[in-house]
Amino acid sequence: MRLSIALDAMSGDHGPSAVIPAALDTLKKHDDLQLILVGHEDVLRQTLRDHGASEDERLIVHHASQRVQMNDLPSQALRSKKDSSMRVAIDLVRDRVAHACVSAGNTGALMATARFVLKTLPGIDRPAICTTMPAINGHTHLLDLGANVDSTAEQLFQFAVMGSALTSAVDNIPDPKVALLNIGQEEIKGSDRVKEAAALLAESDLNYVGFVEGTDIFKGKVDVIVCDGFVGNVAIKASEGVAEMIAHYAKEEFQRSLYSRLAALLSNRVINALRQKTDPRRYNGASFLGLRGIVIKSHGGADTVSFAHAIEEAIIEIQKNVPERISSHLESLLTERQAI
Amino acid sequence: MRLSIALDAMSGDHGPSAVIPAALDTLKKHDDLQLILVGHEDVLRQTLRDHGASEDERLIVHHASQRVQMNDLPSQALRSKKDSSMRVAIDLVRDRVAHACVSAGNTGALMATARFVLKTLPGIDRPAICTTMPAINGHTHLLDLGANVDSTAEQLFQFAVMGSALTSAVDNIPDPKVALLNIGQEEIKGSDRVKEAAALLAESDLNYVGFVEGTDIFKGKVDVIVCDGFVGNVAIKASEGVAEMIAHYAKEEFQRSLYSRLAALLSNRVINALRQKTDPRRYNGASFLGLRGIVIKSHGGADTVSFAHAIEEAIIEIQKNVPERISSHLESLLTERQAI
Repeated sequence: MRLSIALDAMSGDHGPSAVIPAALDTLKKHDDLQLILVGHEDVLRQTLRDHGASEDERLIVHHASQRVQMNDLPSQALRSKKDSSMRVAIDLVRDRVAHACVSAGNTGALMATARFVLKTLPGIDRPAICTTMPAINGHTHLLDLGANVDSTAEQLFQFAVMGSALTSAVDNIPDPKVALLNIGQEEIKGSDRVKEAAALLAESDLNYVGFVEGTDIFKGKVDVIVCDGFVGNVAIKASEGVAEMIAHYAKEEFQRSLYSRLAALLSNRVINALRQKTDPRRYNGASFLGLRGIVIKSHGGADTVSFAHAIEEAIIEIQKNVPERISSHLESLLTERQAI
Repeated sequence: MRLSIALDAMSGDHGPSAVIPAALDTLKKHDDLQLILVGHEDVLRQTLRDHGASEDERLIVHHASQRVQMNDLPSQALRSKKDSSMRVAIDLVRDRVAHACVSAGNTGALMATARFVLKTLPGIDRPAICTTMPAINGHTHLLDLGANVDSTAEQLFQFAVMGSALTSAVDNIPDPKVALLNIGQEEIKGSDRVKEAAALLAESDLNYVGFVEGTDIFKGKVDVIVCDGFVGNVAIKASEGVAEMIAHYAKEEFQRSLYSRLAALLSNRVINALRQKTDPRRYNGASFLGLRGIVIKSHGGADTVSFAHAIEEAIIEIQKNVPERISSHLESLLTERQAI
């Protein structure tokens, strides 16, 4: 099978100047891959030339006249930008021209458009956003990251099914450990919704291991952590904030004196290794789960390395047929539940 | 005025062996301070002797025969441990023998007991837990951290009033910048509760500056960040988790080879300075706000330095009369609201 992926080439802070080199790098690694660059054809062809590249059967330019801006409201994007690079890339997935699409555009617009164009899978109320987080042992999949607020227990249950199917597929784990994010105090033990979701999960055939706390996201003891989109969004952003603060202080301390600048020089190799290990670019590419098609969201500020990681995520999800796995797992769980 | 503080000396992972040296250190710094060590008198007197210290009018042993364990349910602690060091320390605040109490015990039991014994201030539905978070510029006060889940808009509003009063008092800022924690996507912009709370805050005389995201906790651009206890708890624990992961990887990288161990040796001074700057012990001492009395929660794992910081927090809150400030600010806001 030849894999085909539509890239929203106008999206993100860097647009084609990050997307095109990422596309060229990725094509070198995968012989059976075809990439469709969606965006303004003049701009794309010029950027291709700038990189000494040109179109061929594996790298196609597909014209789209509009561009969704970072501050466009999802409803505006949906209504008045029907020829945006984002919309056209998703249309190509719907029309089965592409197996997946990748965009670094506005998350809200991307989710609204993907949901409108592709529709949700049977049995899924709402799609969720799932990402991979680095951990002391391996990594953890966290969802939802902000597609939903105030999720019901049933929706949290659906997120768990989707996260489990994704993790099982991309990490080759037959029975991923699934946990619910909660707070640790006995007297409260989370909202009623979390407790109800726990009951649903305990009855299911998922490998549900119970509640975890915020610290556990970075321990890697469980494979999938499920929470409401509001909570997940705050967790991921607070984590980014801490990492930035530590980096800021480290830089400040290493520049404080001649001695510390010398120490920095000698520690350079170690610091680079550390930076690489926690490099958020390695984890770029969040999955929109629960749709009838594969949509990968790249970070808006993604550079070439980062965007290439998002394309790799799309490739794995196509190869492992993630939407089909979610759909069949959910179906078997619902049948099982009805049988009880 | 002589300040008097009751210390739950049996609490936390280290009990009197952390609390007593912290008490001795703090007494040296404050001539007008009296500390009441609450706990089993034999244990406390022995620990005092071990530290070459003894009781006097500034350091009093107050016997309590029971101890609340970390896994005691709040209801159990309240019902069957009426002579616990925690309960007796809070009773001393109610009876105006002490101006405040500090405990490193079980958060749930401490909150339930404090609420039962001291009662909430007029106009406060529920107390909240507030802590200081380090930031790139200064620090930020974050609340609630887990005393409440599923807070209403009105409760979020009350948290804002309490956080503002605390910050104004302890940081000497006349008009602290108050923000609501939210998620950044335009199409959602948080739950209905957050939006309603924003409307209430915008109408008030608080210096409400709008929504912030998780990353902003560590930037220090605002003074007070308000959220639901579930969200705050996840934010703080996820942040701890990231910091632990970075420390873990840093240690691993600095020990990888002879070269990196040498680099570590040379960077020692810099790393220590960095560690000190982000040292969570400096931020120990969360405030239980909204009660008719001052209760400070120390981290369960607090060592001497850490517990001493929690006592310092109690001293400042007594000196600045935080409960009275909250009460009068809330009253003026409610009068103002009725007048509209």
